[in-house]
Amino acid sequence: MLFLVRMDVNIPRDLPADEANEIKAREKAYSQDLQRDGRWKSIWRVVGEYANYSIFDVSSNDEMHQLLQGLPLFPFMKIDVTPLAAHPSAIA
Amino acid sequence: MLFLVRMDVNIPRDLPADEANEIKAREKAYSQDLQRDGRWKSIWRVVGEYANYSIFDVSSNDEMHQLLQGLPLFPFMKIDVTPLAAHPSAIA
Amino acid sequence: MLFLVRMDVNIPRDLPADEANEIKAREKAYSQDLQRDGRWKSIWRVVGEYANYSIFDVSSNDEMHQLLQGLPLFPFMKIDVTPLAAHPSAIA
Amino acid sequence: MLFLVRMDVNIPRDLPADEANEIKAREKAYSQDLQRDGRWKSIWRVVGEYANYSIFDVSSNDEMHQLLQGLPLFPFMKIDVTPLAAHPSAIA
Amino acid sequence: MLFLVRMDVNIPRDLPADEANEIKAREKAYSQDLQRDGRWKSIWRVVGEYANYSIFDVSSNDEMHQLLQGLPLFPFMKIDVTPLAAHPSAIA
Amino acid sequence: MLFLVRMDVNIPRDLPADEANEIKAREKAYSQDLQRDGRWKSIWRVVGEYANYSIFDVSSNDEMHQLLQGLPLFPFMKIDVTPLAAHPSAIA
Amino acid sequence: MLFLVRMDVNIPRDLPADEANEIKAREKAYSQDLQRDGRWKSIWRVVGEYANYSIFDVSSNDEMHQLLQGLPLFPFMKIDVTPLAAHPSAIA
Amino acid sequence: MLFLVRMDVNIPRDLPADEANEIKAREKAYSQDLQRDGRWKSIWRVVGEYANYSIFDVSSNDEMHQLLQGLPLFPFMKIDVTPLAAHPSAIA
Amino acid sequence: MLFLVRMDVNIPRDLPADEANEIKAREKAYSQDLQRDGRWKSIWRVVGEYANYSIFDVSSNDEMHQLLQGLPLFPFMKIDVTPLAAHPSAIA
Amino acid sequence: MLFLVRMDVNIPRDLPADEANEIKAREKAYSQDLQRDGRWKSIWRVVGEYANYSIFDVSSNDEMHQLLQGLPLFPFMKIDVTPLAAHPSAIA
Repeated sequence: MLFLVRMDVNIPRDLPADEANEIKAREKAYSQDLQRDGRWKSIWRVVGEYANYSIFDVSSNDEMHQLLQGLPLFPFMKIDVTPLAAHPSAIA
Repeated sequence: MLFLVRMDVNIPRDLPADEANEIKAREKAYSQDLQRDGRWKSIWRVVGEYANYSIFDVSSNDEMHQLLQGLPLFPFMKIDVTPLAAHPSAIA
Repeated sequence: MLFLVRMDVNIPRDLPADEANEIKAREKAYSQDLQRDGRWKSIWRVVGEYANYSIFDVSSNDEMHQLLQGLPLFPFMKIDVTPLAAHPSAIA
Repeated sequence: MLFLVRMDVNIPRDLPADEANEIKAREKAYSQDLQRDGRWKSIWRVVGEYANYSIFDVSSNDEMHQLLQGLPLFPFMKIDVTPLAAHPSAIA
Repeated sequence: MLFLVRMDVNIPRDLPADEANEIKAREKAYSQDLQRDGRWKSIWRVVGEYANYSIFDVSSNDEMHQLLQGLPLFPFMKIDVTPLAAHPSAIA
Repeated sequence: MLFLVRMDVNIPRDLPADEANEIKAREKAYSQDLQRDGRWKSIWRVVGEYANYSIFDVSSNDEMHQLLQGLPLFPFMKIDVTPLAAHPSAIA
Repeated sequence: MLFLVRMDVNIPRDLPADEANEIKAREKAYSQDLQRDGRWKSIWRVVGEYANYSIFDVSSNDEMHQLLQGLPLFPFMKIDVTPLAAHPSAIA
Repeated sequence: MLFLVRMDVNIPRDLPADEANEIKAREKAYSQDLQRDGRWKSIWRVVGEYANYSIFDVSSNDEMHQLLQGLPLFPFMKIDVTPLAAHPSAIA
Repeated sequence: MLFLVRMDVNIPRDLPADEANEIKAREKAYSQDLQRDGRWKSIWRVVGEYANYSIFDVSSNDEMHQLLQGLPLFPFMKIDVTPLAAHPSAIA
Repeated sequence: MLFLVRMDVNIPRDLPADEANEIKAREKAYSQDLQRDGRWKSIWRVVGEYANYSIFDVSSNDEMHQLLQGLPLFPFMKIDVTPLAAHPSAIA
């Protein structure tokens, strides 16, 4: 079951650089684990912005929320979720 | 080079059903040709709306515009285009 | 799996009254069938507007879309879908 | 008398963790008390956001305001209230 | 129980003048009946617009909706409803 | 001459509680003085928000601005002013 | 007492040219009469749009509304009114 | 003196094709004349939309408005004008 | 060449009062100098807001920007600029 | 391949002046290097705002993002990117 998710990141300037870097490293690992297990199917940078569009493949709304709420950057992101369905013109 | 494209379809009620169906059949064929040649990578229905999100892979802004302008439903759609770039956390 | 859905109805003035009434009767029957089988859990009128908020309980995004697309009034509605998850403070 | 309420929570980063946790614990107790007495009928998490949609059943606008204003997180929330009425298609 | 209601009127140009005038006459009578019985407490014109702000005093959300839905101009208005509560600084 | 005014209050968290309370006490007194002299005709709480809708009766735009600018909470409010005129359906 | 007014004109395409021209001629005469008597102090075209910004000097909200409602183009305009007050830095 | 102008074109479906084509031909000639005399410096298509962004170089606001108002497609366009000034980092 | 300019002022609360007063005094002198030389033709307070609408008469976009950028309050204002042209109904 | 980019700059007040000046000097040098190599074709100030509109000529979305992300002021800007295509009426 697919979702399109947009995440806009806004790390406060007064967060110590060490702390910010540690959070970003955990975020990257967290994302790559989910990419490897197939639930975070795609992630793209929005040109010119500290933001991404991602495709997730999960089995329920609850699972979708758990994955997003667990993001290390969750407290510093604005997240917008769009549920997707099969399109009748899709060939695959 | 990737683009996220949202298309909202609004076919006028006074378009004769035959004409509408013929346009939708051409739209489907047009989309599937581009899906087969790899430029229209994905198409998903937005849940609850006569709309889709799609991913395109083209070699220039001009090619992106030509593909969209050529859509049989182009006169009846509101289209929004977001250029995408590689994300540093993407594993593939 | 729950969704909050807002539907705003806008029936064109030039739709013949007979046709409009027939569509509204089918809409009501369609809604009540889904309420009886438990998938359309709640429907409320928005005060002062020809609109409703509803709660649906379905097993996938695809099922959610199929139910909404099948609404007899679908061509005359603006629909907005919000996926819901369990809240940690909910007692039931 | 029903209301749909959306609450978006935004706890300032400089609120001490102890204080934040104490407020959140009081918020949970407050919510569960109202759920038990039947006035806070439902609460759901909005997928991907620190926000909820809730249904309240109260006897007046004043009671609705008193309940919301009494929320321990009230100073840290943006709240949007929509009055609901019975829908003619509802079976219950 | 008070509500602030904004109504924006938009009568279609192709509605025959006789019909429009008859609807407006019924609207005026309907409004003045409710003003006389105390439920439509105030009505003011928004300067420069075919719109009004009104204060209603009713006993429930359902009654509020029934009054608004019964307006002869209801099909030609955009209506926005804000529930009001007592203000602690009000002297009366 | 009437105006509908919406005021949204946002007192900064770092304003000392004593100072905030003193400002709020002065605001209440200021409001009640104007209510007593008839210029601040009504004040209602917006349900669920730290905001009010008010009706003012003044003799000019300048007087309206002077009254609002003099509010002790003026620096902490977003204010929106709508000029009102007599409505032809009003009975009084 | 001054108001800034923005008027956006949208004459329907199916209004007969004769009728449109007659309305526009009356609009011009109406505007110039009010300019001559000093109540319509200024009128400017918004660059690139079929719209104007105007300054009116009237003695009440009711007079402001009567002048605007009397515009021959009133049924074909979206009007936005902003009340103005004296500015403490103005030299005149 | 430069302006950035965005034009969104919306030709009504019931405009006869001959008439639409004749207007579009005149629009093209009009645009190319102004491009040749240097006042319409650039014109680009917005990817995926029937819209353009253009740069104009004119000597006054009045000239800017006259050029835009004279566009054969003017009645069918939404136009948005942004005045531009020299940027201190520009090398030319 | 005329421009309508709206300025919304937002002086940060932690700016020392002395500094704020000194900036406001310089702003007033700057504005009055430009009013006297005829380039800042009018300035009005927006009722209920710490904002003004002004009319400027300058010879170019660059001059318009230089005047605005030179405002002592420029760092604390949101400024919106609308270019104006002669209106065919203006009598003067 | 062209892009229209709008950048709105917002340097926090508590950034030390030395640091801000150093960043602005690097920004200017960065911009002028890209202007000289032809990728940053134009940069204009938006009249009245600390913002610019720019035209970039790059070979891919990824290159566009790399250039923008590398801006010394990137952390302090809101950036909006519009992909442009050739316009059929352009003479050059």
